[in-house]
Amino acid sequence: MILPKYFDDRAKMLDRVLDQYLTPETEEPKDLYAAMRYSVFSGGKRLRPILFYATYEMLVKKATEHQMEQASLIAAALEMVHTASLIHDDLPSVDNSDERRGKESCHVKFGSATAILAGDALLTKAFEMITKLEDPRKAVHCIRVLCNLVSTQGMIGGQTVDIISSSKQNIPITVIKYVHLKKTGALLEAASHLACVMADADENTTNNMVNYAQNLGLAYQIIDDILDDIGDFEMLGKEPYEDARNFKSTYPSILGLDKARQTAEKLISDSSKLIKNLPNNHILIEFVKMIKDRLP
Amino acid sequence: MILPKYFDDRAKMLDRVLDQYLTPETEEPKDLYAAMRYSVFSGGKRLRPILFYATYEMLVKKATEHQMEQASLIAAALEMVHTASLIHDDLPSVDNSDERRGKESCHVKFGSATAILAGDALLTKAFEMITKLEDPRKAVHCIRVLCNLVSTQGMIGGQTVDIISSSKQNIPITVIKYVHLKKTGALLEAASHLACVMADADENTTNNMVNYAQNLGLAYQIIDDILDDIGDFEMLGKEPYEDARNFKSTYPSILGLDKARQTAEKLISDSSKLIKNLPNNHILIEFVKMIKDRLP
Repeated sequence: MILPKYFDDRAKMLDRVLDQYLTPETEEPKDLYAAMRYSVFSGGKRLRPILFYATYEMLVKKATEHQMEQASLIAAALEMVHTASLIHDDLPSVDNSDERRGKESCHVKFGSATAILAGDALLTKAFEMITKLEDPRKAVHCIRVLCNLVSTQGMIGGQTVDIISSSKQNIPITVIKYVHLKKTGALLEAASHLACVMADADENTTNNMVNYAQNLGLAYQIIDDILDDIGDFEMLGKEPYEDARNFKSTYPSILGLDKARQTAEKLISDSSKLIKNLPNNHILIEFVKMIKDRLP
Repeated sequence: MILPKYFDDRAKMLDRVLDQYLTPETEEPKDLYAAMRYSVFSGGKRLRPILFYATYEMLVKKATEHQMEQASLIAAALEMVHTASLIHDDLPSVDNSDERRGKESCHVKFGSATAILAGDALLTKAFEMITKLEDPRKAVHCIRVLCNLVSTQGMIGGQTVDIISSSKQNIPITVIKYVHLKKTGALLEAASHLACVMADADENTTNNMVNYAQNLGLAYQIIDDILDDIGDFEMLGKEPYEDARNFKSTYPSILGLDKARQTAEKLISDSSKLIKNLPNNHILIEFVKMIKDRLP
């Protein structure tokens, strides 16, 4: 999967901001700062911040250095919330994952207590980042949007339903869709929505960009289900057949492989349509391509 | 311990607001909403919101109904953050407490996964509450103050140092003081500080009210250490001798009972001095009395 230079540039921009605002682990309490930094800098793809930057830069056309600095506060907040959720999801009593991106999970390296607190601290830090925006009205708007997509009707709600469902078999497709849209999709939706708030986009544009992110996020997850089902280790980036081993209901297990693939294709094509008439849309087109290229 | 009618009135006001903003557990995901409500309505003393209301009402003199509605958003946010921290603190991998206020802890009743997520959701909800303030500048100011006192240099930092220290013996008194001031004290400090922000208090008043809360919070914790040490079950409200059983360093174990008592008395007297010249200070005097009355 070859990604355009833009992805690499914005990932580096984000990393500089994260490094600037996350306290070094030479300060006390060292373990807490170390755990936060370890998980934030553990090789994530930075998809949410990059989607945010790409949408924002498309909407404002030529962003000034100052605008990019302000936008970077939101990009960093998105990655902090995402990291907080991964730390808590990996905990033994939640998804019980010892590894994340080929490295020890936060709780394996630092213990569960520190991991729980590091997650709480990153979640809090995300909101603090947004308070640094120079326009208080925009800051409040962004915090409200992020809270809404993080909380009980967003990411946390999706994770809750995923946990409840994973002990059951034959989950309806509507529930699987809900989990995909919320657990993983909510922060992609947040990235798009926050870009629109920062760029003062109108309601129609905001709705379109939110739909674009929702479709892409859902397509990504369905393709993950498919890659797991057919055992494509390389594209999946982790051991396949995990869903089958856990008797987990997925798009291919419920709809069959062909229907799952068609659903993903339809979502990808809908995403393309939503952005095709927008000027300066080439990076958002790359996003669609990147997800389409994962479809086997 | 007889508390003035004011305490009861404001606790009831807070409970109405919490009930209004916390989604009922008849909605999905039911378990998540049930866990959030269970912990929020499990008989807490509401000290932080009441301290906030008392400070705010003293500063604005005669608060209008509308001002009290706005203030209640902050009071609710304080209790939500406090509850989130108790849920996470009680987890098996943190303080491992099966009981809280004589009832099953959140994770015992709902499982650790739901408890972790309910804590995350309450923390997020607290910030969302503050975005509902009509003045965006004040909202951003309040969120910044709360983030600062919740995060790595506040409550979460204090809890981290407490966990690290509890596996060691002969902890220096400066570290015990740090843990008391941060782990428990930070949200009392937040209550005072946020009241000052909401009331547009000047810097000098804000500093005095923050010091008042810090002194009272530290005195409260030292008295807790003393009650545990001498085995006063009734005043402590839980099984005593827990610190000794866990070989935990405390004010009396390090300084001796007399010196610990003198330290608490000094802090209480300092608190009194900080408010004695303020008009309309009778409820804040009650706060001091309430804490003084716990000293055996």
